[in-house]
Amino acid sequence: MSSWPRNQWYVAAYSAEVTEELMARTICGEPMVFYRTSDGEVVALADRCVHRRFPLSKSHLVDDNVICGYHGFTYDRTGTCLAAPGQKRIPRTARVPAFHLLEQDSLVWVWIGETDRADESTVPRAPWLDSPDYTTVRGLEPLKARYGLLVDNLMDLSHETYLHGGYIGTPEVAETPITTEVDDEAQVIYVSRHMDDAACPPFYATSTGIEGRITRWQDIEYHPPCLYLLHSRVAPVGTPDPAEDGRDEPAFHVEVVYAITPETEHSTHDFWMVARDFALEDQGVSDFLAESNRTVVLQDVEALDVLEVVVEGEKENYQELSINIDTGGLAARRIIARQLTKGEAVTA
Amino acid sequence: MSSWPRNQWYVAAYSAEVTEELMARTICGEPMVFYRTSDGEVVALADRCVHRRFPLSKSHLVDDNVICGYHGFTYDRTGTCLAAPGQKRIPRTARVPAFHLLEQDSLVWVWIGETDRADESTVPRAPWLDSPDYTTVRGLEPLKARYGLLVDNLMDLSHETYLHGGYIGTPEVAETPITTEVDDEAQVIYVSRHMDDAACPPFYATSTGIEGRITRWQDIEYHPPCLYLLHSRVAPVGTPDPAEDGRDEPAFHVEVVYAITPETEHSTHDFWMVARDFALEDQGVSDFLAESNRTVVLQDVEALDVLEVVVEGEKENYQELSINIDTGGLAARRIIARQLTKGEAVTA
Amino acid sequence: MSSWPRNQWYVAAYSAEVTEELMARTICGEPMVFYRTSDGEVVALADRCVHRRFPLSKSHLVDDNVICGYHGFTYDRTGTCLAAPGQKRIPRTARVPAFHLLEQDSLVWVWIGETDRADESTVPRAPWLDSPDYTTVRGLEPLKARYGLLVDNLMDLSHETYLHGGYIGTPEVAETPITTEVDDEAQVIYVSRHMDDAACPPFYATSTGIEGRITRWQDIEYHPPCLYLLHSRVAPVGTPDPAEDGRDEPAFHVEVVYAITPETEHSTHDFWMVARDFALEDQGVSDFLAESNRTVVLQDVEALDVLEVVVEGEKENYQELSINIDTGGLAARRIIARQLTKGEAVTA
Repeated sequence: MSSWPRNQWYVAAYSAEVTEELMARTICGEPMVFYRTSDGEVVALADRCVHRRFPLSKSHLVDDNVICGYHGFTYDRTGTCLAAPGQKRIPRTARVPAFHLLEQDSLVWVWIGETDRADESTVPRAPWLDSPDYTTVRGLEPLKARYGLLVDNLMDLSHETYLHGGYIGTPEVAETPITTEVDDEAQVIYVSRHMDDAACPPFYATSTGIEGRITRWQDIEYHPPCLYLLHSRVAPVGTPDPAEDGRDEPAFHVEVVYAITPETEHSTHDFWMVARDFALEDQGVSDFLAESNRTVVLQDVEALDVLEVVVEGEKENYQELSINIDTGGLAARRIIARQLTKGEAVTA
Repeated sequence: MSSWPRNQWYVAAYSAEVTEELMARTICGEPMVFYRTSDGEVVALADRCVHRRFPLSKSHLVDDNVICGYHGFTYDRTGTCLAAPGQKRIPRTARVPAFHLLEQDSLVWVWIGETDRADESTVPRAPWLDSPDYTTVRGLEPLKARYGLLVDNLMDLSHETYLHGGYIGTPEVAETPITTEVDDEAQVIYVSRHMDDAACPPFYATSTGIEGRITRWQDIEYHPPCLYLLHSRVAPVGTPDPAEDGRDEPAFHVEVVYAITPETEHSTHDFWMVARDFALEDQGVSDFLAESNRTVVLQDVEALDVLEVVVEGEKENYQELSINIDTGGLAARRIIARQLTKGEAVTA
Repeated sequence: MSSWPRNQWYVAAYSAEVTEELMARTICGEPMVFYRTSDGEVVALADRCVHRRFPLSKSHLVDDNVICGYHGFTYDRTGTCLAAPGQKRIPRTARVPAFHLLEQDSLVWVWIGETDRADESTVPRAPWLDSPDYTTVRGLEPLKARYGLLVDNLMDLSHETYLHGGYIGTPEVAETPITTEVDDEAQVIYVSRHMDDAACPPFYATSTGIEGRITRWQDIEYHPPCLYLLHSRVAPVGTPDPAEDGRDEPAFHVEVVYAITPETEHSTHDFWMVARDFALEDQGVSDFLAESNRTVVLQDVEALDVLEVVVEGEKENYQELSINIDTGGLAARRIIARQLTKGEAVTA
């Protein structure tokens, strides 16, 4: 049994990454080849010719079909074999698996589970990412650590104070208690930390122009296993709370989105996005936020890569110690464990 | 049980490689040290001192004897210990294994099996390699893949069209059906592809000077596990077939020889040779064929190194799909499987 | 069961290495973080925060306490947790192991075994290392080999002739028989080789200024598992033996000390020191001995790194051959095997 639930949607790529060139990417242990057809459809096939296993990603894309680079087996977007070398007859079993994809909110989602359980309506949303009311910067970092370590990391932001000082961390983050809420039915975890009077870290000071102390809200909404949303609200101290109808013009809003996609048991695709509702056209702000957030992500990557080695070398039955700040992370583990059990049960 | 038959001859080196310098090479999982004595004999000893296992290849060759670089144990060409440090008496068991070698056709063959079953008369021949009627270029590439992947590769030349376009591949290779014949008693497999009217790839056009289309014959003769011969005949379209007595002067003949020697379970010595019966003295043709064939071999190496990773990571019971072009390769697998079983049975 | 005895003292560092900066080092498979407090005490803690396992060595040292670089858990020199993020209450189990250290003879010794069996009086001595009557040069080389291979190496100096020719090896070392004595109760092994008329190798010729042949004594005193002392005495041929009271002024004495500390099952900390009782103030002699001995150590490291690969790839039940020169090494293996059994027995 793998350590990720199979009957779930995962982000495989940014829409902009999938072009009319073959692209290899392993998602949840499945090597896949991605491409976009001339009519704009995104395609993901198993990255392995049925004949002698040659990676299709090292092959040729001609007229929306993939021609294997080793012996010329040719597949269409459904994985059906159209041609084989030295003979006219195509064997009935000559077919590579095609994966169910959904393109939404500028993301390409893939379903790796049982075919008849793929329900597109359950894909969680992140509408800011392609909304005209927001400007988004984004990146993708390879992480040499199991995806659970990134879930732990993101569910407990008190680490910002120690790992990301000078960027997004201030003393108040670690000091301020959190509230955690778990919606077991919808399988969503909410972790909130509202700081009423906090130092403004450079990430927000420079991008918003606020001088002085701030009200800073961190409202995490995690849809295990893949989509992590951090609704971040910053405003000068004394700014009124949002109105009942949600209007909140005096405040600045940043939607930090992570897609946490297992690559292998020991590596993860760390997709990160930062959408803002201010300075929409300001390229300087875009560049600053992109560079700052990438630095923060790389600080996490460095720490988690180290942790992976520690965990992998750990003796059996090692017990870690959890405290209040870990409530959200522990809830995430429980939901993922249930998704794993449930997914497997139905399969069996 | 290793994946190669032990009671078989394998090419360990080119004759020219074995000199009065110690050379380390692992053959079928056995670390060996090779050298040539002052009277011209080739020697292969186990590359491991009996005392503390130090590799003899990192030692000193003095007067045809090997002096261990760690503590000075001294061995002659038969592996017998002649001297030990700090004492006069040589322990009776101080002896390293010496391997049975045969130097023939410019190749050094080694027997890794049971001593009393080594029959020099069964070593397959490749007489072109040191014949005055041929000129040969050659090389040796390290392959990070199991030897079976190279056998597969060479037994099905339809891949030339896709992997070696611009060198030896043309559309006709993949399109033209093959005939396969298996001599179970002699343990030889013949795969033939005769193209009567085909484009002439640069490899032959440049070396022979033929302009226009050609008759192109590919006659494979494989002696599992180690020796692969490709009798290649090219001639302008319309050239008569060879005479009954074998005379075939209007055609150009290239003998492409591969020796496929396992190094470890996941790596192979890929010896390649190209012997021609034309332009014997033309260094330009030699250089061109050497460079072209090396490029072709490196294209295979790159593809097979990738395949090794795929195969190694494959789930159990993965089923590949075989078609007509694979008839020769499948026959090779059967013969090697029988050699394995038979070799083991007698040993037991 | 690990391959080293746990209820023994090991050298973890040179005193000078442990400063008011955090330093990571793995000793006998235990990742540790070392530092020196402002009042001069040496500290070693398990290098792993109790919370999410982050290495404390990648953290911050503030006021003699370690603040975890991930979430800010704070530990004092005893491993007691003083602060945790987001809450006032410190969990009772929030404590990292602190290791028992002893600083002596310029070395920092660590006890990795059962707490109540640590007896500081059993730490073997090497008083030359911080004596005003000696000048010492030293180094530490990482060895990618199990510690037993270094023990073998040092217990049989006949290898000097072959591996270290031009530095410390001459023909007489390999030719001269040894005497071996084992004190089973004190757990010390003595191996002596007294050469009465030997060539003077560059290591001694250059440093002492002796011209011509020498009397050369090598008296090994090994305290398994960690401390190896080589009492080396060189003097011009004809110099009288030491007086009954030990006075030996006409001779030159070099105390070569190795501390052999397992890092992992396949790597070792190779601490080497060379203390001399002559030319105490001569920096040129210091530089020469440091450079020469480092070269010799690196020759051993290169050979042992190779041997580790050989041993690791060895078939089960491989039998090595031992002769007279191995008497000391075999005795060392026996004592270490007994320490292992005895240590485990008491633990169980």
